[in-house]
Amino acid sequence: MNDISRDIDPGLIDRFAAIVGDKYALRDQQDIVPYLTERRGLWHGRTALVLRPGSVDEVSRIMQLATETGTPVVPQSGNTGLVGAQVPDTSGRQIVLSLSRLNRIREIDVLSNTITVEAGVILQTLQEAADAADRLFPLSLAAQGSCQIGGNLSSNAGGTGVLAYGNARELCLGVEVVLPTGEVFDDLRKLKKDNTGYDLKNLFIGAEGTLGVITAAVLKLFPKPKGREVAFAGLSSPEAALSLFSLAMDRAGAALTAFELIGRRPYDFTLLHAPGVVRPLSGDWPWYVLMQISSGRSAEDARALIEEVLSAGLEQEIVGDAVIAASIAQGDAFWNFRELLPEAQKPEGASIKHDISVPVAAIPQFIEKAAGAVQSVSPGAREVCFGHMGDGNLHYNISRPIGGDDEAFLGLYHAMNKAVHDVVRNLHGSISAEHGIGQLKRDELIATAPPMAIELMRRVKTAFDPAGIMNPGKVI
Amino acid sequence: MNDISRDIDPGLIDRFAAIVGDKYALRDQQDIVPYLTERRGLWHGRTALVLRPGSVDEVSRIMQLATETGTPVVPQSGNTGLVGAQVPDTSGRQIVLSLSRLNRIREIDVLSNTITVEAGVILQTLQEAADAADRLFPLSLAAQGSCQIGGNLSSNAGGTGVLAYGNARELCLGVEVVLPTGEVFDDLRKLKKDNTGYDLKNLFIGAEGTLGVITAAVLKLFPKPKGREVAFAGLSSPEAALSLFSLAMDRAGAALTAFELIGRRPYDFTLLHAPGVVRPLSGDWPWYVLMQISSGRSAEDARALIEEVLSAGLEQEIVGDAVIAASIAQGDAFWNFRELLPEAQKPEGASIKHDISVPVAAIPQFIEKAAGAVQSVSPGAREVCFGHMGDGNLHYNISRPIGGDDEAFLGLYHAMNKAVHDVVRNLHGSISAEHGIGQLKRDELIATAPPMAIELMRRVKTAFDPAGIMNPGKVI
Repeated sequence: MNDISRDIDPGLIDRFAAIVGDKYALRDQQDIVPYLTERRGLWHGRTALVLRPGSVDEVSRIMQLATETGTPVVPQSGNTGLVGAQVPDTSGRQIVLSLSRLNRIREIDVLSNTITVEAGVILQTLQEAADAADRLFPLSLAAQGSCQIGGNLSSNAGGTGVLAYGNARELCLGVEVVLPTGEVFDDLRKLKKDNTGYDLKNLFIGAEGTLGVITAAVLKLFPKPKGREVAFAGLSSPEAALSLFSLAMDRAGAALTAFELIGRRPYDFTLLHAPGVVRPLSGDWPWYVLMQISSGRSAEDARALIEEVLSAGLEQEIVGDAVIAASIAQGDAFWNFRELLPEAQKPEGASIKHDISVPVAAIPQFIEKAAGAVQSVSPGAREVCFGHMGDGNLHYNISRPIGGDDEAFLGLYHAMNKAVHDVVRNLHGSISAEHGIGQLKRDELIATAPPMAIELMRRVKTAFDPAGIMNPGKVI
Repeated sequence: MNDISRDIDPGLIDRFAAIVGDKYALRDQQDIVPYLTERRGLWHGRTALVLRPGSVDEVSRIMQLATETGTPVVPQSGNTGLVGAQVPDTSGRQIVLSLSRLNRIREIDVLSNTITVEAGVILQTLQEAADAADRLFPLSLAAQGSCQIGGNLSSNAGGTGVLAYGNARELCLGVEVVLPTGEVFDDLRKLKKDNTGYDLKNLFIGAEGTLGVITAAVLKLFPKPKGREVAFAGLSSPEAALSLFSLAMDRAGAALTAFELIGRRPYDFTLLHAPGVVRPLSGDWPWYVLMQISSGRSAEDARALIEEVLSAGLEQEIVGDAVIAASIAQGDAFWNFRELLPEAQKPEGASIKHDISVPVAAIPQFIEKAAGAVQSVSPGAREVCFGHMGDGNLHYNISRPIGGDDEAFLGLYHAMNKAVHDVVRNLHGSISAEHGIGQLKRDELIATAPPMAIELMRRVKTAFDPAGIMNPGKVI
């Protein structure tokens, strides 16, 4: 472990450390380890230095020195990303720039419905600050207790609120970015409309720290719903789920704030493996939907709407059975059930995961074709399918066959990926709907995206980061 | 007029013409004139050739030849832009590429709620096609009978539907773009979520044809509202209008589909100069609001909501007086009144116009400070203020003083611009909220935007159009 410090000139380490002060320049590998391991344990990077700047000016000086000395920098916020974008490579030459100390909420403007926050603000803290101001910040995802908004923006995070409110991208009005040279691009505006030249903001959002370091952002706030109702429905097929989605959109429109599809298998895994979880529906169904309706008017209104949708669904024989949460606690329990799905898959052995999207109408077709593709690669492998159906986004994870060998199954990783992603591509879908590219899908993106897209992305990268020091080896 | 053909080598003109066929290669100045004059008559370009390709392949071959020969190309669709982006310069060296023959609706997908259209489809045709499929395409603006969707996307058009549905940018899921080299970037996807690399789509949207030629797009469709109610309210101040906006957002949320502020002066000009127009409210008020509420549930629901908002407004003494349209015809008449405001200003003599945005909460402050700035430049000049208040976007037009001299007043153009835009900048606003930059505001943008923004835009321009043939002299 000690040899790592030799990968970067000790004098240079001192110069970087002097910018943030010794306390916030981590050189001891014991302190550094938490910054190197992401939660799925897929990547194990190395670094001799983690810098924790306390101001935008310090970030700027770090990047200036990095440019001067050709030092590659890996920005990191909550370290919850799922594609390895926030982890340094194994060369030991890259340093980690942690944004977690930039954690101020700079301003809440309730009349303009905006909140201005620094990159290191934890998503849940942001939600709570909005709530305290009687507003809603709708970005919501499993890691919200530890992920930070800088990472959410850099990865254009999705989650369960996208259907009604959009991705992180749609929630962002302005950004402050430190460029690779240390120069600050201040575009922290609260404007809903601004047609003054090229859309630079959206280049930085979703760039996974490869074009610059997002240090702050202006985000949209929304009126807090006055009523929320959550229901669990059992259905016979993905086609039925699609019909229910159309029906719910028709009746509830923008009030439909979640529409999550859950296959029988992840449902059963959760009942089996999640301790203390409560069965949402008494009967068994091939497919389930968790649906949420939020009303800006009243609790009664939300109740009436969800009842109307489910009654119509039952009447039209789209829905087999349904239960509306009888209390806030039961609604939270439904959501908890949904959030436990990924974890509950683990005891079933090795799995190969996909984060795909297709046009909403193509979801049933995807599910049918992908199942065939999976079986052709690994007969007996178990499709674990759930996700944000209203966004056309499924987490399509494959567990090894019952009694199968974990290592042998993981050896099929590339073949399985190709089989599933070929179905996605045939349906004009995306191989990364919400998690991004990072290290995980970089080679595949480059190999399979339209060459012109890759060519244009490379030109953007070169234009913004000519020295190639900004999170190299990620995305493109 | 004849000398124009000498600006470009006749042999080259023949080569361009051969791509589209003689019928669609306009060389006669009589045929060309409609492509050179925009409706405000501010720019008078020259060209020897207007090409009207009938396919993406022809557009591609035109751009390929343009790159080969260094010929600057000006893309044009409906020619309704207000900043001169679609007009060639006076050199005679630029050729015009009209997209109007690319006017196919390629597909409507009602289950995925998307429509795929070519650049030359007229906005109103698109709206009607959506309507026929029982869907809403919400982009709506005064020029919709003649503007085309390619231009709407290239200028990131706004209009009256932005409050609930967003700008053209937010309505677009995918684009097909012919690059300056003639290569086609096909990103025509229907996905709500796609995190596979940099956001290239949003670079082309709003780039005013300076990075490539948008030839087709996938756009979002929405459920058609089942009820729509329009009201006209009289108020004492912009502060009262802001309070009414907050109240309406709180009660109606996403159902609030328009919130237009109208000052007393444009209101009176319209009563005076628009033949046959009906007075919306019997009494006189310093400010007016046109408000629209759309319900996805029922006509009764929309009615109940708008009544609730206005009753609360009257009770809280925010609203002085209000009338809800008693029929669809009266609702249309209210909208017609709104759409006539710009035209009704003309008989009052020369005017200097602004298309600004500020944070919504800063609208009252802007109106107060801008009035002071206007008077200091031209005592007696008349502020004509109206616009999309819910988006923080005002059309802030200044008519010359009563009895003043038109030419003398227009001589104050730059001083007036600077005075008003300084107020905008102090409030962290935008000097072009929805019309774009084009030729009109290019110098001002370059002179007043943060130098880093200009620098990054220049890098993008160079990366995408290294030869500088793509609508040169516009935006940046």
